[in-house]
Amino acid sequence: MDGAARGLADIGLTNFAPYLMNRIMGRYNAGFREELAGLGLTTPKARALAVLSVVEAPLVGELAVYTVTEQSTLSRALDQLQADGLIHRKTDPDDSRAVRVTITDAGRYLFADLWPHMLAAQDRMFRDIPEAERSAFLSTLQKMLLNIRKHEI
Amino acid sequence: MDGAARGLADIGLTNFAPYLMNRIMGRYNAGFREELAGLGLTTPKARALAVLSVVEAPLVGELAVYTVTEQSTLSRALDQLQADGLIHRKTDPDDSRAVRVTITDAGRYLFADLWPHMLAAQDRMFRDIPEAERSAFLSTLQKMLLNIRKHEI
Repeated sequence: MDGAARGLADIGLTNFAPYLMNRIMGRYNAGFREELAGLGLTTPKARALAVLSVVEAPLVGELAVYTVTEQSTLSRALDQLQADGLIHRKTDPDDSRAVRVTITDAGRYLFADLWPHMLAAQDRMFRDIPEAERSAFLSTLQKMLLNIRKHEI
Repeated sequence: MDGAARGLADIGLTNFAPYLMNRIMGRYNAGFREELAGLGLTTPKARALAVLSVVEAPLVGELAVYTVTEQSTLSRALDQLQADGLIHRKTDPDDSRAVRVTITDAGRYLFADLWPHMLAAQDRMFRDIPEAERSAFLSTLQKMLLNIRKHEI
C-alpha cells in the first residue's frame, strides 16, 4: 500500500507503534522521576548509576548514548555524583582527551537501593503479560534498536 | 525469583525493556525532530497536528495526554499553530471552563505533507521485522499502555 492510502486515520493512533511507545515511556519515565525524587535522585543520575553498575568504565560519550541523555546534562549529573562520592572520572591512559567513568562502592550500594524500584516499575508495565509474549516483545525491541541506533553500542 | 537475585547484571541492559524502549524512542524522536526542523515544525506542533487529524475536538488536557507534552509547552505550540491558521480553539458550549481544539483545513493540508515522514520513520524502525511479529509487538504495546496509563484515553 502506498503512503497516501495508508493514512494515520486508516492505521489508527493505537496501531501506530511510535505513538504507543511514546505514551508508555512518557508515563513510565514520569513515574520513575517521581519515585527518584523521593530518593533524592534525578533521572540522569539514576540512569548513569544503572549503566555504570553493568558497563565497565565507559567513555563519557558512550555513557550519554546508554543513558539517552544530552552530554551537557550528563556532565552536570556526573559532577554531582562525583561530589557525592558515587562515581569517579579518570583520563584514559591511552588517550589523554578521553575520560572514562567508573562507579564507586558507595555508588553500587546506592544503586542496590534503587534497582528494586526499577524492577517493580518494569513489572507493572508487563502486568498480566505472559512470559513467552514478554520474550518475543524483547526480541523485537532488540531488532528495532539495531535498525535505528547510530552508535555501535 | 526475588529482587535481590534478579539484578540488572543478571538480566543484562539489553534485556531490560525500559532501557531498550528509551534508547529506541530517544533515537526515533531525535531523528523526527531533525526532519521536522526542515519542515519548520517542532515536535509538540507536529504531534498536535497528528492527533487532531484523527481525534475530534479533544480538550486541551486530553491533547496533552495524547501528545505526551506538558500543558505549558503544548499551550505555546497551540498559540503558534493558531496564529498560523492550522488549528483553532473554542470554549466547550457545555462547560465554559473547557477549551476544545480542532484542526483547520490548512492544518490537515500541512499534516498530509508531514505524515509520509512519520510513516517512513516507523517503517525504518520495523525494517526486516515480519508482519506477524510486528502485529504481536503492537498487541503487547497496547496491553502495556493499559497497564501504565493514568487517563482513560
